[in-house]
Amino acid sequence: MTPADQVLSLCARIAALTDIPGTITRTFLSPATRAVHSLLTAEMQSLGMTVRTDSAGNLRGIYPAQDDLSSRGNNLSSRSEAEGSAFAVPTLLLGSHIDTVPDSGPYDGVLGVAIPIVLIRMLAGKKLPCNIEIIAFSEEEGVRFKFPFIGSRALVGTLTRADLTRTDYLGISIAQALEDFGLNPLSPSAPLVTSRTFAYLEVHIEQGPVLESLALPLGVVTSIIGQSRLSLTFHGEANHAGTTPMSFRKDALAAAARFIAEVQSYPQDDPHLLATVGSITAFPNAANVIPGAVTVSLDVRHPSDAARLEAVEALKTLAQSHGLPVTITDRGGQSSVPMDPALSALLTTAAAPYAPHCMASGAGHDAMIVAPYIPTAMLFLRTPRGLSHHPQESVSAEDIQTALATCLRFLNTLHPTP
Amino acid sequence: MTPADQVLSLCARIAALTDIPGTITRTFLSPATRAVHSLLTAEMQSLGMTVRTDSAGNLRGIYPAQDDLSSRGNNLSSRSEAEGSAFAVPTLLLGSHIDTVPDSGPYDGVLGVAIPIVLIRMLAGKKLPCNIEIIAFSEEEGVRFKFPFIGSRALVGTLTRADLTRTDYLGISIAQALEDFGLNPLSPSAPLVTSRTFAYLEVHIEQGPVLESLALPLGVVTSIIGQSRLSLTFHGEANHAGTTPMSFRKDALAAAARFIAEVQSYPQDDPHLLATVGSITAFPNAANVIPGAVTVSLDVRHPSDAARLEAVEALKTLAQSHGLPVTITDRGGQSSVPMDPALSALLTTAAAPYAPHCMASGAGHDAMIVAPYIPTAMLFLRTPRGLSHHPQESVSAEDIQTALATCLRFLNTLHPTP
Repeated sequence: MTPADQVLSLCARIAALTDIPGTITRTFLSPATRAVHSLLTAEMQSLGMTVRTDSAGNLRGIYPAQDDLSSRGNNLSSRSEAEGSAFAVPTLLLGSHIDTVPDSGPYDGVLGVAIPIVLIRMLAGKKLPCNIEIIAFSEEEGVRFKFPFIGSRALVGTLTRADLTRTDYLGISIAQALEDFGLNPLSPSAPLVTSRTFAYLEVHIEQGPVLESLALPLGVVTSIIGQSRLSLTFHGEANHAGTTPMSFRKDALAAAARFIAEVQSYPQDDPHLLATVGSITAFPNAANVIPGAVTVSLDVRHPSDAARLEAVEALKTLAQSHGLPVTITDRGGQSSVPMDPALSALLTTAAAPYAPHCMASGAGHDAMIVAPYIPTAMLFLRTPRGLSHHPQESVSAEDIQTALATCLRFLNTLHPTP
Repeated sequence: MTPADQVLSLCARIAALTDIPGTITRTFLSPATRAVHSLLTAEMQSLGMTVRTDSAGNLRGIYPAQDDLSSRGNNLSSRSEAEGSAFAVPTLLLGSHIDTVPDSGPYDGVLGVAIPIVLIRMLAGKKLPCNIEIIAFSEEEGVRFKFPFIGSRALVGTLTRADLTRTDYLGISIAQALEDFGLNPLSPSAPLVTSRTFAYLEVHIEQGPVLESLALPLGVVTSIIGQSRLSLTFHGEANHAGTTPMSFRKDALAAAARFIAEVQSYPQDDPHLLATVGSITAFPNAANVIPGAVTVSLDVRHPSDAARLEAVEALKTLAQSHGLPVTITDRGGQSSVPMDPALSALLTTAAAPYAPHCMASGAGHDAMIVAPYIPTAMLFLRTPRGLSHHPQESVSAEDIQTALATCLRFLNTLHPTP
């Protein structure tokens, strides 16, 4: 079996471990997650790696550095939860998440764990001047607790005590879920890595159509683009669709519709701007009643925070230009997160034979959480039809082969500061 | 108490009889309906009227014609369910409905029963050359069985055997509900009036803002305008709002929004055309997903059927001009129903001191069901703020006074064919 086929096979075996038979669905610390831990632990142990689950439920395997380095104070069996404190050796972190959205595909997240494992096998026992740590983040999608990135937040120490009290639909808290899984209590704000972890590389499917449209297998991510989330309610006046002449109407849906059309056409001069109205609710939403109020979502993204905020202000102004009062609520946002330029340059060089496309990521990833704390780079694989979060999500063996070759070159050209 | 105050008082006493305390809610043959029957029966009997409930649950009171006419074979006590067959005397029908939408106001329907009762009192025993029959239709709003006009359909014989098997949310059929109320079995397609009923007059609040905007108390209805009901589904492609560049999108909501804006602006050259999108549903309706499908309702009304159908075709074409496939479903409709010109002219003359506005009705009424079978006229009263189907629905004592005076003149100028 080629290395690429090994990756596909491992992804397929993980996909079979699901909370809901007939679908690919794995939520934070579910029984299926435990089964994936067993599978990955066996895989990694067979490669001579030392495997454990950290106190946030992240599965972590260490492939030790060259003997002369890894013997330096590396006492894995006795180290405390302040893990890595004994690591005098520089460590490269590779990985992604193993949770999924409901009825997902086999590659989102999982591919970024399977590729590093096969990569270690391709090393055929060869050691590097650094440890390689593979991490399978316990949670990224935010399904169980309506709160994403639990695994990577815990890793870098940004999970708070309040976050741990968030509950799922059964009323079970994150803290309780960790305890139920048999884990040690998690100390919020205490990172689960040390400064010896000098770099993080995440491999992920693009989840969009850009690489496919360029006929390129790989992308190097320059930044995770920032996002503004708003909610806008247009206030009209509900009235009878048969007795109210057009000129007397205060039709909230007509105003909202003009705004939605403007949102779609607004970015036309800026190819990096994304503006989306994804949800709409009309009241009373009856065929024979003029809508009295309409609430829409607004999602604006741009690699440049300044350009994004400028677009948000312009769209707010447009919303208010349709003759009806509008209530605008800020639903939070996220600044653009740049990847590490030096590390990304190294990755680009390693991918050079495949003419990698340098691109922003429109979706959030664990890399976005990790990047402010650990130099981070991210490699995208072409996603056929841009289809993701879907059972038909796919990735080709050829593209996996290019990713494996790129990562192997990347490993071999890394020069960690000892 | 002035006659207008008597009307307001009667409406208030009826409003107090409700299925849901704290609201005005009366559905077909509910306990509150029985209480209204008792109240109205006592009122009408005190005016020397003979009162009964027909087999469709309509409450009907007869104020007999002049003695020389009403004695002609008028044996009310022994007549069969083929009611009116014994009426050799011409009969004028006056009335409206006493059911309501949930949480309604005190006047929609009820006013058209209260005004005729006070009108009979104003006659002070004076008899006319025709019987006056007051009818309180049992059902017009369509709430209980999602099927409107049960009372007036039964009156004119257009209720079918299949209609009687329609069930409410408890599985009770219309036939069963009639039987549970203690009524005789209803023979579908057998009208509950004879040809001696030569005219029907319905008094109703306008439920719109037109009379108020013209500063006029009364309107004479020329027709109930026709209506087309459609459902349109725009088919796009659901995709990630962060990873899908604008130029790659097939945004079903953006297409639907452009169409909704067009629907609102389309009637601008024709003040009689009404076009409304009242309901909208987007899938998956998530803030961070480009909508993959959007379904909207379309309601088009016009006094001219030809103009309405032309507008529907034009709007269908516009829907298909936004680059996405559209599925268009016909949800039924209703042709325009003209009121009787001669009877309406008589009503207009009777209302002449108040400069009545001749206008189409954009809402359906029992008059629409009755008109194809019995010459029908309809009088509208100004509705403050156009507010109807609402607890704050109102009507002024002054306007009621003009309606009473108009109806009195109308009665006194009627010349029924003997």
